[in-house]
Amino acid sequence: MLCEIITIGDEILIGQIVDTNSAWMAQQLNELGIRVKQITSISDDKQHIIDALNEAQKRADIILITGGLGPTKDDITKHTLAEYFNAKLVLNEEALANVERIFARFHRPVTEVNRKQAEVPDNCSIIQNPQGTAPGMHFQENGKHIFSMPGVPFEMKAIMESSVLPYIKSNFIGHTLIHENILTVGIGESFLATEIEDIENALPSHIKLAYLPKLGQVRMRLTANYDGAYDPNEILNYKKQISERVHKNVVAEEDISFEEAILNILIKNNKKLSTAESCTGGYISHLFTSIPGSSRAFEGGAVSYSYDLKKSMLGVTQSTLDTCGAVSQETVEEMAKGAVEHFKTDYAIACSGIAGPDGGTEDKPVGTVWIAVATPNHVVSKKFQFGNLRMQNIERTAVQALYMLFRLIREE
Amino acid sequence: MLCEIITIGDEILIGQIVDTNSAWMAQQLNELGIRVKQITSISDDKQHIIDALNEAQKRADIILITGGLGPTKDDITKHTLAEYFNAKLVLNEEALANVERIFARFHRPVTEVNRKQAEVPDNCSIIQNPQGTAPGMHFQENGKHIFSMPGVPFEMKAIMESSVLPYIKSNFIGHTLIHENILTVGIGESFLATEIEDIENALPSHIKLAYLPKLGQVRMRLTANYDGAYDPNEILNYKKQISERVHKNVVAEEDISFEEAILNILIKNNKKLSTAESCTGGYISHLFTSIPGSSRAFEGGAVSYSYDLKKSMLGVTQSTLDTCGAVSQETVEEMAKGAVEHFKTDYAIACSGIAGPDGGTEDKPVGTVWIAVATPNHVVSKKFQFGNLRMQNIERTAVQALYMLFRLIREE
Repeated sequence: MLCEIITIGDEILIGQIVDTNSAWMAQQLNELGIRVKQITSISDDKQHIIDALNEAQKRADIILITGGLGPTKDDITKHTLAEYFNAKLVLNEEALANVERIFARFHRPVTEVNRKQAEVPDNCSIIQNPQGTAPGMHFQENGKHIFSMPGVPFEMKAIMESSVLPYIKSNFIGHTLIHENILTVGIGESFLATEIEDIENALPSHIKLAYLPKLGQVRMRLTANYDGAYDPNEILNYKKQISERVHKNVVAEEDISFEEAILNILIKNNKKLSTAESCTGGYISHLFTSIPGSSRAFEGGAVSYSYDLKKSMLGVTQSTLDTCGAVSQETVEEMAKGAVEHFKTDYAIACSGIAGPDGGTEDKPVGTVWIAVATPNHVVSKKFQFGNLRMQNIERTAVQALYMLFRLIREE
Repeated sequence: MLCEIITIGDEILIGQIVDTNSAWMAQQLNELGIRVKQITSISDDKQHIIDALNEAQKRADIILITGGLGPTKDDITKHTLAEYFNAKLVLNEEALANVERIFARFHRPVTEVNRKQAEVPDNCSIIQNPQGTAPGMHFQENGKHIFSMPGVPFEMKAIMESSVLPYIKSNFIGHTLIHENILTVGIGESFLATEIEDIENALPSHIKLAYLPKLGQVRMRLTANYDGAYDPNEILNYKKQISERVHKNVVAEEDISFEEAILNILIKNNKKLSTAESCTGGYISHLFTSIPGSSRAFEGGAVSYSYDLKKSMLGVTQSTLDTCGAVSQETVEEMAKGAVEHFKTDYAIACSGIAGPDGGTEDKPVGTVWIAVATPNHVVSKKFQFGNLRMQNIERTAVQALYMLFRLIREE
């Protein structure tokens, strides 16, 4: 069972937006064990859409299309699909009810243009769009399945989650897939693979291990593929073997982000966290506060970019700043201790560094970063030397700071 | 002159990474006036690469390929290109010197695997990679140009900027392209288009206007295309007409982000800014501090997620929190005034809201956000009602807060 994704829209081809839809869809399909053969981005052009559909049908069984379903003139996907299938556009009552429901919510009248959103080719089944006026459409022809969805990410996701993925799961997946995740930090992919080589080699053929690396982190995903009855403990046993082997680097055993894993531990232990950010400038706080419910463990913190704020918000002393500078072990430790004390938390993270591209010196080149983590009676600090790309330095600092906090929590 | 982009790599097709390379390349080409016809993402599979190349050559004159140039077994792009062009792999001395230079920098020996990075098909011109060991390659066949580059974003960008884009510019662009940008906030694309309809209609055929919208902002880009001699003031005159017509909403007249535009004004006026973030949780600080040199105007701020930190860091009173709650006009104004006072800045931004998905009440549903901006003797606040998606609420709050600050600065 192969799948292809076609994203339609000039805004992708002129580089105005990054196509995040495809990656999300590919990830969801990958979790169902369905391979994506190709992702194609094309313009709002009738012949190009038809050519892409023809090509995709030669290679794949399921084709997911996004984009071009808006109400404006340049949105031509629906008309092109109607022409492609020799179908007529007809008003769909269910889709119209959805349009009316959405406009009623905003107390606005349904115009003729809006009503047209409820017209669909007469050979498709509509898929309700809980988040917008353009319905999804499901076409079947010669054993191929073509799903057309809006390009707005949260509308596409709502349609995928409520309808398309469940449909694919119940119609095309005969077997049972079980996933187990292990998130590691502080060990590279190749070292990890060497560490667990014997366990990986001993996996039965119906259990696969995938390595999914990203900046400073590697997620391992075990996928078991069962045809009939199975023992749910089988995959868990392998997961346990791997986790135990590299336990120092394991930060989560679920499919969650590193920051969410840390929040979960803090919430479980009824502990509070604060931050004192200089070079990361709010990024670490942003990571935590992007997680729903983070306020149960994350109190907040200081973005202390200036000397003055390092002193007034965190109690860093003038003499430390004068003697050692802002990017130093002494300053970052005072920042972390100051955060614990001033913000009355059980833990604090502090960072100070030269993110770049300018501001480096011979002693402290761009990419020099000091990180400290503290409790009310303990502080640990470490120096890092990253590269010269500002955003990468900010992100790397965040991952390393979270890892230092994680180890501090575990060692206590 | 049409272009296509082919990105090679299983990690894209399993959704492990978002393909940001294509958008960046498309943007660069678009600025040169070159149309991208299609973007195709395919796996590290020989036949699939060959098929994609054949298809792309039917449609386009320039083909940019990224990915599959690493030293590991699954990186097969180079071998596939050699086979495709019936070429032999030969060691390239210039490329080898680059590999040796990079390894010398890290004081590591060049292994056999690393040396192989310097082998290229004998029918290509190599393009030096200032950031990595895999050289870029330029193939010419039947008037078509094929450029192969690494998939690592900063390596690809370095090769594009140092070689590919200049090559395209000097060989394929006979005319002169001039771009002018106007960034607007607080007005939707369709309203904007109506406002300036007569100016747009009066544009000569060699000057085009593009609308590039994103969350709360619309960038307008004028592009003039001259064949021979030209008057550089022509495009500036149209830009001035448009800017004056919608001056209330214009926040920048260069190709920069909104936050950078604000920082530039603050730096020029020698003013300082601080933040007091609750629902945005550090995101606004992160936006500012992502800009190199932001420390010249941005002092820092408080991420005051908890009641306690709103009191201790910003001086919000217990009685205000008790009477009005954290998400209220009174609290957000005290936060903004507190930031100006405690952080000794000329301006401050404060936000407090219910980002969701939980935590709403009948009075204050999810998406309720109060924003205030303040100077030492003035404070302005406003209530917003956004939707129920956490990240969108955070981003929308940030844009609106920046816009309120921008207007406050201008009105002073």
